[in-house]
Amino acid sequence: MPELRKDPIHGRWVIISTERSRRPSDFPPETRKPLGGFCPLCEGNEDRTPPEIIAFRNNGTLPNTPGWSLRVVPNKFPALRIEGELEREGEGIYDKMNGIGAHEVVVETPFHYETLATLPLKAVEDVLWAYRERIIDLRRDPRLRYVMVFKNHGLAAGASLEHSHSQIIALPIVPIRVREEIEGAKNYFNYKDRCVFCDILRQEIQTKSRIIAENESFLAIAPFASRFPFETWILPKGHYPCFETMPPPLYQKAAEILSDTLQRLKNVVNDPPYNYIIHTSSSQENDKEYYHWHFEIMPKLTKVAGFEWGTGFYINPTPPEEAAEYMREAK
Amino acid sequence: MPELRKDPIHGRWVIISTERSRRPSDFPPETRKPLGGFCPLCEGNEDRTPPEIIAFRNNGTLPNTPGWSLRVVPNKFPALRIEGELEREGEGIYDKMNGIGAHEVVVETPFHYETLATLPLKAVEDVLWAYRERIIDLRRDPRLRYVMVFKNHGLAAGASLEHSHSQIIALPIVPIRVREEIEGAKNYFNYKDRCVFCDILRQEIQTKSRIIAENESFLAIAPFASRFPFETWILPKGHYPCFETMPPPLYQKAAEILSDTLQRLKNVVNDPPYNYIIHTSSSQENDKEYYHWHFEIMPKLTKVAGFEWGTGFYINPTPPEEAAEYMREAK
Repeated sequence: MPELRKDPIHGRWVIISTERSRRPSDFPPETRKPLGGFCPLCEGNEDRTPPEIIAFRNNGTLPNTPGWSLRVVPNKFPALRIEGELEREGEGIYDKMNGIGAHEVVVETPFHYETLATLPLKAVEDVLWAYRERIIDLRRDPRLRYVMVFKNHGLAAGASLEHSHSQIIALPIVPIRVREEIEGAKNYFNYKDRCVFCDILRQEIQTKSRIIAENESFLAIAPFASRFPFETWILPKGHYPCFETMPPPLYQKAAEILSDTLQRLKNVVNDPPYNYIIHTSSSQENDKEYYHWHFEIMPKLTKVAGFEWGTGFYINPTPPEEAAEYMREAK
Repeated sequence: MPELRKDPIHGRWVIISTERSRRPSDFPPETRKPLGGFCPLCEGNEDRTPPEIIAFRNNGTLPNTPGWSLRVVPNKFPALRIEGELEREGEGIYDKMNGIGAHEVVVETPFHYETLATLPLKAVEDVLWAYRERIIDLRRDPRLRYVMVFKNHGLAAGASLEHSHSQIIALPIVPIRVREEIEGAKNYFNYKDRCVFCDILRQEIQTKSRIIAENESFLAIAPFASRFPFETWILPKGHYPCFETMPPPLYQKAAEILSDTLQRLKNVVNDPPYNYIIHTSSSQENDKEYYHWHFEIMPKLTKVAGFEWGTGFYINPTPPEEAAEYMREAK
């Protein structure tokens, strides 16, 4: 009998479809089309991206030349533009505004074939520090209301460049899915006087079966209502609403568990395509009590089709307890 | 400058990314992996599906034998099971229930290579009548709260069988995206005392630039805040909340514009993968005034990646006014 499970934050339901149960070997590896020979993100090709915003470089090297370990550059084909004033406007019954915002690319390594699963821990930690620095800077802009950090890894997850990178988009409005998550957490807090994510941490530590990895400051779990096979959330054990205001020593711990989790994922399902997203609080709200930042890693092994689009319901053929077991054993 | 547009029903925003503007020829045709030689939905293979629920057949032919023009059968690998009582349960802090529901397949034609874009009008109309009959029957079951009709066409849209078919899933709860849409329409009605869909119809008929096709009873448009290139909505011009209680003569008109629209889509972008969903009111609500059934057709030409997952925001490289122009000219 399939099981319906409800996500305690969003209220969305998931069908854990045991009759279609799929093990890691049931997911074929992505058919990779190499994306062409030239890579604008490789060391030596610094002139093929817009000028860098920040970079971690060897002493004595010049901006936009080789000698870096990480660069943040504006997206060459930005979804939003940083120049101008925000103009809101009606068009008949509709509402629109001009596309003010920022769209940046974090080039995580100078080497084309490294990924967050193969880079040394220090490099992964640097990526998190770069996120932090850019979020803090972008939040100073009063036109921008939310900064979203995300990564597309692999073609099926929407990556148009193979070279390991993540993206930062700063938006003039708090997007609806972020608002819903914050509202869901607020409703839970109003009802129980507890943070829903802290409750999830307590529950998962007690239940054990959905734990993937753990260190003194973070827990990686397969969430109870996983939408996707091998979906993984990484949560700080302490209650921190914002990624970028966490105490500095925690970035190393976050890098440690992120690297560990991505290595496990790579080993279990043959380097699958995935998206990850940093869920962090919006700057407009004093959500210190009820919101709790975390990573959501979503492998793209199943197709999202009409049913999911129409309902917001997901059909997941791999129960999270099984996924967690495979992930725990892989390494 | 990119433009942000807000969907008036859901409140979700879309980035119309003019700088990445893409014409129909910029979308490569889907690379088709043929899905294997044997097709369980073809005429003659009736014993390879579960026994039919309804079928439109030649006089004198027996159930589950050749001689049909359309069959509805239970899904062989159902996401939900029809047998049993609905049991709701807690598990620690989480909520779950058993997977009661129905999952049916509408086999739209006995012929493997026909599609809704190539079938005669009468066959398309029969598909709509079959939807209607199944929705009415499933709504009689008091355990079921919502019936969703959808279609996955093409591999990239999640179709696992090539043979033209659609699916019907009946769920024990009203899914969150349906509730959100109904709530959005209700809020608009409370504010304006008008149906938002009726307002959209009036606006689009006046603006003209987003109209794709039209007949006396239906309008096909590229919605103002299209999430996807060539996204198309088909709305009845009259205010009908439910697909299945529409006056009978309208099914022919609906088939006419659906067939016409899918032919245009096929011609414009080389038979693209797409999903369509019938948005119809839930049986629990007396939503006669503020809800208005419609089709949403979503071609899958762009990848949904981390940004869309995290925000509910979409980046659409083809402005709907341009999409509508290409679609109007194609036929």
